[in-house]
Amino acid sequence: MSGTLYGIGVGPGDPELITLKAHRILQTVPVVAWPAPLEGESLARKIAAPHITHAPQEVAIRMPLETAQFPDRSVYDHAAEEIGGHLESGRDVAALCEGDPFFYGSFMYLFGRVAPRFDVVIVPGISSLMAAAAALHAPLAARNDLMTVVPAPLPEADLSDAISRSDSVAIIKVGRHLAKVRRVLDDLGLAANAQYVAYATMTDQIVSPLSEITLEKAPYFSLILVHKRGVAWR
Amino acid sequence: MSGTLYGIGVGPGDPELITLKAHRILQTVPVVAWPAPLEGESLARKIAAPHITHAPQEVAIRMPLETAQFPDRSVYDHAAEEIGGHLESGRDVAALCEGDPFFYGSFMYLFGRVAPRFDVVIVPGISSLMAAAAALHAPLAARNDLMTVVPAPLPEADLSDAISRSDSVAIIKVGRHLAKVRRVLDDLGLAANAQYVAYATMTDQIVSPLSEITLEKAPYFSLILVHKRGVAWR
Repeated sequence: MSGTLYGIGVGPGDPELITLKAHRILQTVPVVAWPAPLEGESLARKIAAPHITHAPQEVAIRMPLETAQFPDRSVYDHAAEEIGGHLESGRDVAALCEGDPFFYGSFMYLFGRVAPRFDVVIVPGISSLMAAAAALHAPLAARNDLMTVVPAPLPEADLSDAISRSDSVAIIKVGRHLAKVRRVLDDLGLAANAQYVAYATMTDQIVSPLSEITLEKAPYFSLILVHKRGVAWR
Repeated sequence: MSGTLYGIGVGPGDPELITLKAHRILQTVPVVAWPAPLEGESLARKIAAPHITHAPQEVAIRMPLETAQFPDRSVYDHAAEEIGGHLESGRDVAALCEGDPFFYGSFMYLFGRVAPRFDVVIVPGISSLMAAAAALHAPLAARNDLMTVVPAPLPEADLSDAISRSDSVAIIKVGRHLAKVRRVLDDLGLAANAQYVAYATMTDQIVSPLSEITLEKAPYFSLILVHKRGVAWR
């Protein structure tokens, strides 16, 4: 019998923000796969480390950290082949995903290749969106709010349009687009409502009004929350 | 010393989709508060039941199930007073929240009343959004997708506008607005891309293309996911 691929959301950073289900699977799964930059450690593997107390086989899926618009297909072809070999031999594989597997995660490219041939179970994880709101003490949305997740690499006019039409926005993938995001929020008169979070729930977490952040470039793991009413419960 | 209020996300339904952190707090907390309909059981309390193995004091926060546009302030005033009494006496309180506490949850009204006077810690939970995507095997969003959470009670023109401008939408609070949502999706030529999930991760979970659902009215715990590209990884 073939093995099952588990897409495991390991949450935003704090190892305690993993689900009991993910924890249970990680305790015994014979093979663990994880994304990592071309060199250096895997954040997903680091978050999961306290939960993996046996010595599974490991599959590294290495790619550039700031995922390109169209990620290199060969990386996923290769990973799907290696993981497929384990599944064919009856070994379950847990693929670790930062946050949630299906929320802007690269896991979906692996999923697209493996799901047609093998059983896949997705174990949802805490998204950085919810973790950032918790850290900020700022509810994301209430009642009939229109809430939009806005990737900062979009063109300035698209950012402005999306933000102006929403009650609540979460701006993700800020990175080198920070100056552009500030400009858009200033133009819309929303700068005072913008809250910044980096490394939510990790030991180096930063939580601040965006106006007090003096960086030119935000870290990859940062996001900006803006609510038009200031706070959602108003 | 005063107690701490914990806003605990208990996740979408499967008791195993609670975090280790929530589990740890629930094991020992002296007071547990939970929302419930005017009569009958609390879903949040039911989800948390396997994790509460001692006998804490319990605070019921009862209100109409289909939360009105402006929830009754007196319910929260009352709950905040009762919970404040426990906190003042040094007893920690865990307030249970379906899904995530800060994602369209009624917990924020309690938070707004308690946070100015006492320490509050938010423990994020798995949202039904991520749980539905996992159940559907349908990634929510990829790359630079604009993703919008759209409450179905909005007027038809607003729904149409929000959906047409997004790459991916999650339509929440469908309930008696199902026919309107269908009409909007039909008009936009997106009906074939719409996926329906009810009671995600619960024992009575339903997962189906929307086109195969013949209900007139959707249950309160249902949502509809639509991606313009059909699947996000394309």
